[in-house]
Amino acid sequence: MARLITLLESGHPDAQREGAELFPHTGRALVIGITGPPGAGKSTLVDQLIAEYRRRDLSVGVLAVDPSSPFTRGALLGDRVRLRSFVDDDHVFVRSMANRGHMGGMSLATPAAIRVLDAMGMDRVIVETVGVGQSEVEIMNAVDCTVVVEVPGMGDSIQTMKAGVMEIADQFVVNKADRDGASRIAQEIRRLLRERGVGRRDNLVVSTVASTGVGVDELVTAIETFLAAQRASGELERRRVRQLHTELERHVSQKAQHRVMAGLHSKVTEDILNALQHRTRDPESIAAALIDESLNVDANSPVGARRAGR
Amino acid sequence: MARLITLLESGHPDAQREGAELFPHTGRALVIGITGPPGAGKSTLVDQLIAEYRRRDLSVGVLAVDPSSPFTRGALLGDRVRLRSFVDDDHVFVRSMANRGHMGGMSLATPAAIRVLDAMGMDRVIVETVGVGQSEVEIMNAVDCTVVVEVPGMGDSIQTMKAGVMEIADQFVVNKADRDGASRIAQEIRRLLRERGVGRRDNLVVSTVASTGVGVDELVTAIETFLAAQRASGELERRRVRQLHTELERHVSQKAQHRVMAGLHSKVTEDILNALQHRTRDPESIAAALIDESLNVDANSPVGARRAGR
Repeated sequence: MARLITLLESGHPDAQREGAELFPHTGRALVIGITGPPGAGKSTLVDQLIAEYRRRDLSVGVLAVDPSSPFTRGALLGDRVRLRSFVDDDHVFVRSMANRGHMGGMSLATPAAIRVLDAMGMDRVIVETVGVGQSEVEIMNAVDCTVVVEVPGMGDSIQTMKAGVMEIADQFVVNKADRDGASRIAQEIRRLLRERGVGRRDNLVVSTVASTGVGVDELVTAIETFLAAQRASGELERRRVRQLHTELERHVSQKAQHRVMAGLHSKVTEDILNALQHRTRDPESIAAALIDESLNVDANSPVGARRAGR
Repeated sequence: MARLITLLESGHPDAQREGAELFPHTGRALVIGITGPPGAGKSTLVDQLIAEYRRRDLSVGVLAVDPSSPFTRGALLGDRVRLRSFVDDDHVFVRSMANRGHMGGMSLATPAAIRVLDAMGMDRVIVETVGVGQSEVEIMNAVDCTVVVEVPGMGDSIQTMKAGVMEIADQFVVNKADRDGASRIAQEIRRLLRERGVGRRDNLVVSTVASTGVGVDELVTAIETFLAAQRASGELERRRVRQLHTELERHVSQKAQHRVMAGLHSKVTEDILNALQHRTRDPESIAAALIDESLNVDANSPVGARRAGR
């Protein structure tokens, strides 16, 4: 499993073939995403979720994804040391993935890695991300249930939610609920959900103390109830098709970049470099001209029409 | 100036034309980048740099760029309030730019905005970034002198430098130099520089206390000495051509994406969505097939050969 995920991450030519072979054997696992600000206790919570799923006799794959920075790799891998308590359990598989700076990056590597765990028979796959930026929102586009973790005592956490996380959350957790201000945070989340006309579901906001395990059973029940309802209504399937469509678009975008960049080297002539140096032609205008030479997506051009008509 | 920068940020069709018209009038300003970890006091240092440059009778444009997250915009804009002390000075212009989530993003918007300030006659342009991730490294690819700010008391700051910032730094600052550990940080930077066989220049590491202005005069002198030497050796010009070449490649990459994506909608048929839903064809294989239909970069294909030969 680990070797296959590494291959898929690498962008090696074999990766596409392996991914294609795996695909028909996927779709069985239910995928849970865990996101929230740094310091919210996500890793501890994930450890507790693994333990609770094992108690329910379900196997669990975990992907810990750090898309934010090439410089924070060490910290995340360090966190993972705690997961050694599951090292002898064949029904638990944990893998860290860090941003390798590829174009497309984690938003393509994550669903590929999820499918490895899925095809290998994991009942649940938990995807944990560090941070709450745009990359995390993109990664959460590959899961069946997005769990957003908040904690008391972080000044701008509600601000964070207002700005974009609110839209992607299927389930909220107020972790470190033994701290001052926990019930205020939970109330604030519920108020914001009401304002948006959502949130009538029971247990949409669950309080936990991940360090002791308090509330984890309730959280897993809330997640499982959500997933069962999604499946029954057909929304699970529709959501997955939407996600696969988005993933397809990202692959097209990435492959278009790669193809055009591969052909670019020979096109940047001495004349072009001189024009840049003497500032007679700007980079964007040159780029537009080079693209017109390289791409054939305009159906009104003679060649484009020819292609469209064949 | 502000309206023009907003236009260039917006990706509006007029932006390319405006950028092209500006380009021949650029290249005069010297551009200084300031980067370093959050909490290093970069904003305060930038305020002091503005004041010092004004004492030297040079005009200063400032771009404060936050590429890290769509959710941190507020904090950065809040910081900028302090700059109101320069609000009546016509020779100082300050602009915040936040990540709008465009493909290509800040690494294309930043050089465009720098050129506006340059063309408008600013003697120096200071680009301040928040954080030390990959985006910041990309933004620093648009400046003539990259200044990396470190502070005592941040456990992993030297680790950060080892991981990538060391390579892009032209000038180091140890800010908050009145704190414990400041001289140790400066020594550690000098040791790392020696290990890499660079760093013989005087004043390559300058200590400052931005809150009181201590060391700022020395820092500006170090930056100006570096820039003068770069110009005299021809390296300033060579570096700028390299940067413009990189910018050209990014524009090509972005435009390739946009063109292909624009043509994609009609190509994702019901059949394709069914194949995804029933997992008979995986997203990457479908993407590869769509790209083969859309792109004409293979000179061996009949159509490619036709285009290449005309």
